[in-house]
Amino acid sequence: MRPNGRTPAQVRPVTITRNYTLHAEGSVLVEFGNTKVLCTASVEESVPRFLKGQGKGWITAEYGMLPRATHTRNQREAAKGKQGGRTLEISRLIARALRAAVDLKALGENTITIDCDVIQADGGTRTASITGGFVALADAINYLINKGALKVNPIKHMIAAVSVGIVDGKALCDLEYVEDSAADTDMNVVMTECGKMIEVQGTAEEAPFSHEELLEMLALAKAGIDDLVAAQKAALAE
Amino acid sequence: MRPNGRTPAQVRPVTITRNYTLHAEGSVLVEFGNTKVLCTASVEESVPRFLKGQGKGWITAEYGMLPRATHTRNQREAAKGKQGGRTLEISRLIARALRAAVDLKALGENTITIDCDVIQADGGTRTASITGGFVALADAINYLINKGALKVNPIKHMIAAVSVGIVDGKALCDLEYVEDSAADTDMNVVMTECGKMIEVQGTAEEAPFSHEELLEMLALAKAGIDDLVAAQKAALAE
Amino acid sequence: MRPNGRTPAQVRPVTITRNYTLHAEGSVLVEFGNTKVLCTASVEESVPRFLKGQGKGWITAEYGMLPRATHTRNQREAAKGKQGGRTLEISRLIARALRAAVDLKALGENTITIDCDVIQADGGTRTASITGGFVALADAINYLINKGALKVNPIKHMIAAVSVGIVDGKALCDLEYVEDSAADTDMNVVMTECGKMIEVQGTAEEAPFSHEELLEMLALAKAGIDDLVAAQKAALAE
Amino acid sequence: MRPNGRTPAQVRPVTITRNYTLHAEGSVLVEFGNTKVLCTASVEESVPRFLKGQGKGWITAEYGMLPRATHTRNQREAAKGKQGGRTLEISRLIARALRAAVDLKALGENTITIDCDVIQADGGTRTASITGGFVALADAINYLINKGALKVNPIKHMIAAVSVGIVDGKALCDLEYVEDSAADTDMNVVMTECGKMIEVQGTAEEAPFSHEELLEMLALAKAGIDDLVAAQKAALAE
Amino acid sequence: MRPNGRTPAQVRPVTITRNYTLHAEGSVLVEFGNTKVLCTASVEESVPRFLKGQGKGWITAEYGMLPRATHTRNQREAAKGKQGGRTLEISRLIARALRAAVDLKALGENTITIDCDVIQADGGTRTASITGGFVALADAINYLINKGALKVNPIKHMIAAVSVGIVDGKALCDLEYVEDSAADTDMNVVMTECGKMIEVQGTAEEAPFSHEELLEMLALAKAGIDDLVAAQKAALAE
Amino acid sequence: MRPNGRTPAQVRPVTITRNYTLHAEGSVLVEFGNTKVLCTASVEESVPRFLKGQGKGWITAEYGMLPRATHTRNQREAAKGKQGGRTLEISRLIARALRAAVDLKALGENTITIDCDVIQADGGTRTASITGGFVALADAINYLINKGALKVNPIKHMIAAVSVGIVDGKALCDLEYVEDSAADTDMNVVMTECGKMIEVQGTAEEAPFSHEELLEMLALAKAGIDDLVAAQKAALAE
Repeated sequence: MRPNGRTPAQVRPVTITRNYTLHAEGSVLVEFGNTKVLCTASVEESVPRFLKGQGKGWITAEYGMLPRATHTRNQREAAKGKQGGRTLEISRLIARALRAAVDLKALGENTITIDCDVIQADGGTRTASITGGFVALADAINYLINKGALKVNPIKHMIAAVSVGIVDGKALCDLEYVEDSAADTDMNVVMTECGKMIEVQGTAEEAPFSHEELLEMLALAKAGIDDLVAAQKAALAE
Repeated sequence: MRPNGRTPAQVRPVTITRNYTLHAEGSVLVEFGNTKVLCTASVEESVPRFLKGQGKGWITAEYGMLPRATHTRNQREAAKGKQGGRTLEISRLIARALRAAVDLKALGENTITIDCDVIQADGGTRTASITGGFVALADAINYLINKGALKVNPIKHMIAAVSVGIVDGKALCDLEYVEDSAADTDMNVVMTECGKMIEVQGTAEEAPFSHEELLEMLALAKAGIDDLVAAQKAALAE
Repeated sequence: MRPNGRTPAQVRPVTITRNYTLHAEGSVLVEFGNTKVLCTASVEESVPRFLKGQGKGWITAEYGMLPRATHTRNQREAAKGKQGGRTLEISRLIARALRAAVDLKALGENTITIDCDVIQADGGTRTASITGGFVALADAINYLINKGALKVNPIKHMIAAVSVGIVDGKALCDLEYVEDSAADTDMNVVMTECGKMIEVQGTAEEAPFSHEELLEMLALAKAGIDDLVAAQKAALAE
Repeated sequence: MRPNGRTPAQVRPVTITRNYTLHAEGSVLVEFGNTKVLCTASVEESVPRFLKGQGKGWITAEYGMLPRATHTRNQREAAKGKQGGRTLEISRLIARALRAAVDLKALGENTITIDCDVIQADGGTRTASITGGFVALADAINYLINKGALKVNPIKHMIAAVSVGIVDGKALCDLEYVEDSAADTDMNVVMTECGKMIEVQGTAEEAPFSHEELLEMLALAKAGIDDLVAAQKAALAE
Repeated sequence: MRPNGRTPAQVRPVTITRNYTLHAEGSVLVEFGNTKVLCTASVEESVPRFLKGQGKGWITAEYGMLPRATHTRNQREAAKGKQGGRTLEISRLIARALRAAVDLKALGENTITIDCDVIQADGGTRTASITGGFVALADAINYLINKGALKVNPIKHMIAAVSVGIVDGKALCDLEYVEDSAADTDMNVVMTECGKMIEVQGTAEEAPFSHEELLEMLALAKAGIDDLVAAQKAALAE
Repeated sequence: MRPNGRTPAQVRPVTITRNYTLHAEGSVLVEFGNTKVLCTASVEESVPRFLKGQGKGWITAEYGMLPRATHTRNQREAAKGKQGGRTLEISRLIARALRAAVDLKALGENTITIDCDVIQADGGTRTASITGGFVALADAINYLINKGALKVNPIKHMIAAVSVGIVDGKALCDLEYVEDSAADTDMNVVMTECGKMIEVQGTAEEAPFSHEELLEMLALAKAGIDDLVAAQKAALAE
């Protein structure tokens, strides 16, 4: 039995609140159960130096965790004077995933920065960040369309992300913290709304996993992502 | 006329939400109008090295601003690799103010860290941090009392903070961003519930201020702090 | 009785030595008793990027303490790889105070940097820095006038700074180290030569202070600053 | 046709030179075609603080690239003052993969650090690092066994890693640089000698990939890893 | 008796392998006995800002040591976040020495960066770096000549470097590690092929040295450098 | 003709002021003409970790330059977040030179830190630092003797340092800034009072130097150091 009686394939209750803060062009609070991430999208009508003059845009992302988003307090990275490897790895993953959703040519010479700050952590913060970050990105693009800076919507397809894993020999979807820390294998999957893969990152934490287990996890991920895309669509339809 | 029709002495609507997140021993979302700060209090049952073996406790604080809490995005301090002067100055102010509320001897060899993270900024983030941080601190102390680690409540008096300023020659209480950026003088005041002063920091941004203006600002601050302490008491009574 | 038999209102012997070093456009050794700070003013005929093309100038400041300016050696900040919060806070205070003395429009597109390096510390290093820094600034402006880069003197009014505090229930002016470390309240005040306030920063170190105590400290500060401005005038007249 | 006429499933010529340098307990130069990585294993007979007293060991890894291992010179990370996200991400991957090969309990309170420094880069530096790093690790463990510090060999299974990708719609094994930069999808796979998975990291660089493409890439990876494990065994048998 | 039966004046076997790696314009593995340093020269057809528009070029150098080039592992400087004093001192020495070999005017607005990375250390890494770095520099200059970017060879004279020292009261040339750590005095000498001095850096590690000892060391250095220049010439003739 | 009519062998007027500041165990202002360096010696009755329990002491040094000690302002290293290579190189030189003057065994488990801060620079700041630093060190050792912490004076011999160089083909002693910037060769020499060498660092800035020029420079250095040791003795005799 999973905590809260979820079935193995069932994602946690998902809430996507748009316009959560005032200033950002896109601002979304995404909740996967007790995991809460604030995703803001900031538009800058220019591109980084390495893209100057190529007529295409850029999407980047930064991930952070408030010091007490977790069970015990983590030292603030700004105070330590550097971002840890985990933070940079997740920032790079979010950015790659969101860039894969957009035709950068069609974005024109604009940069959109997605900031994902974890308010409360209970497993799956990176997948929540990607899922909520996509909605914030969509809002920022709408902002550019509404003000006439873009004629065509550069989004190629919706994307969402979910974690899956093997716990006690059983594949589960959308691991919460107690499951995640007991998992033999942990996998994060980013897919398009039609089920094609953007990122697959599977790690054997405790025991190597078999081909069959991989397939089982991918099937759960596909189903979970279908639910998450539905939640994104509902939020964007409001 | 002030935005939203406030009188010069009137503070913005104040909301203090306790237990805003799950993990921290104290967790408060404080709102002064559109300014929103998440204040968490984390308890560690030990003290920093410089206090070891003296039988007294410590209270410290860190302030941060999410990159898009403001009108335009600020570079993330963790990515820059250092905290700016403004951040450190405010962190030190919050810590000093909260330490002044507590008998460190009576706190025993415990450390409480108050993290104040600005979710949305509209002026007065440091005064909201102190006001909300005090409630988070009170909850963390209650946690220590409830688990039997403290016999006596070490809080000496409640404290709260408000900004006051001179705008167009007129003294105003609890400046919001548009007022703050037009102010000739800007002053932050921390007081105890009985109106004694903990910190007074007045700065002539545009024009030096007179003794009379100082007195006028202090009177407004006292009234504003009375309102804020009332809000703190109501929140703590829930 | 104060050390050296000073009356409560009396500042320490003040010495202001201009042209203390060779290379800087303004170079002042300021001594408040045993506190000795070297203040240099460096002129650059350009402005920082954020002011480019606005036809106005800039004044900035940096504060530092030699490792053995104090009773025990402090680790060198350059070796630690970052400036501490206290250093940045004082640098910001000095810069704000000196900017308030100058009409930045009238300064034209010039930048003046005031470096305040504490050679020997005995309390009041920040107020000595502001008081001596003003004289170095005045010399740097004279340099610009003499070489024809400025037609009009952009100084609006002289400024000086002094610390005041409550020690053993008694208000004292210009605290030296032994007084400062015993003070219940410590306040730094920057004023113009005509007694208007530029900065007031009062901190309850041990006990909150009352309105009456604040007024008493401000009166002492005003008298002390009168003496300091007289010393500045005498130095500038040489 | 691939460069050098390789078949899609064919890995580049692999060379594994043990005892490449004098001082390290394990020292391996691994070459995948023109990619050359020096992997050293350093033994320390103690564990990091977080493991003290638990009777188990630790394996960690650091990855670096010499400034001119690549077509154009990269700024030295030591000179920049920080390791980039890519460097940290690869270091973490290597460490996780090698830890998965070892029973940390059986390793006792010893730490082995694997340094992987890229002398020359032509694609696949992280997979070469893992493959060569495993051999260096095995030698370091032999060193501990030979000196009597370990009674039982703590290696659970051999591991190796290879990259696979989709280039021009075709799945290829062990991408070299020109293939890697033209790939639509790029995947790194770490497996045990018996084909169970340790890590799977697939990224859609240009176009999302289908379930079928994933399976095709995994099949190529399995075959490639068989060849790499054979090369490891041959090297270790010398 | 010296290790390996060398005479006091005898340098270790020297090997200079050109074109050691693929990408750099000059790439040399230099070996002084067991000391092995990879020296690469990277050409950039521009100059640093401080030289812009002066029609002359620049030569710079960076030195690094792989973490396990030494008997015990050194922490990676990129991970520490700063280069140590020894590293910076050696980088500056190499750069100064190589600049002294070249007419920077005749180099035109080109920059050549010499990276010297120690693969294995056994004493004399800085002198090996200079000796091998000169050959890499010569190859990079040949590259510029061959592509027509330079008409005239800007090299003024060949240079090489050797260490000498006083061990047990006896002057020795080209100290290896066991000698170096027992030396009373250690001196590094850089000379031109005709025996004029570029750098002389002598340090009394254990005991001050006399004028006579200095002369004796210089004589050994001159002889050693003759041998090294011969090895450079042989390598460049291949 | 040299500036101020000095003969080639003549050092600038040297002033050594002991007890220049209050708090340090040794505090010396050393002036070589217009070069002014404050050297303080700080005693700590313990040793760094790597020397614990060996019954010997340690001497270390740090060098810094005030931002406006020079013709144009240098950025403060504390603000840059790191010490430059030149700073670290000079710090290491001063420390090595002063350690060579002392029997560390006889110093017992004490650490003396020499801080050399350049107030005004006009060439020769490192040699002034060593010469003045030695006097500060001697005073700190006297402090330890006077308080009974040392029975025997651990100083083995006095040391001093001077720069020499070749300017317009002529050897000169104690170069001031205008000479130094025109020098073909620049050499810093540290010697004991009896003329044995501690450090010799000669650099061909513009042209290689011959054996004869080296000898000529060493002879000038010896004479200059005789004068400096006389000045040290006179100062210590006061």
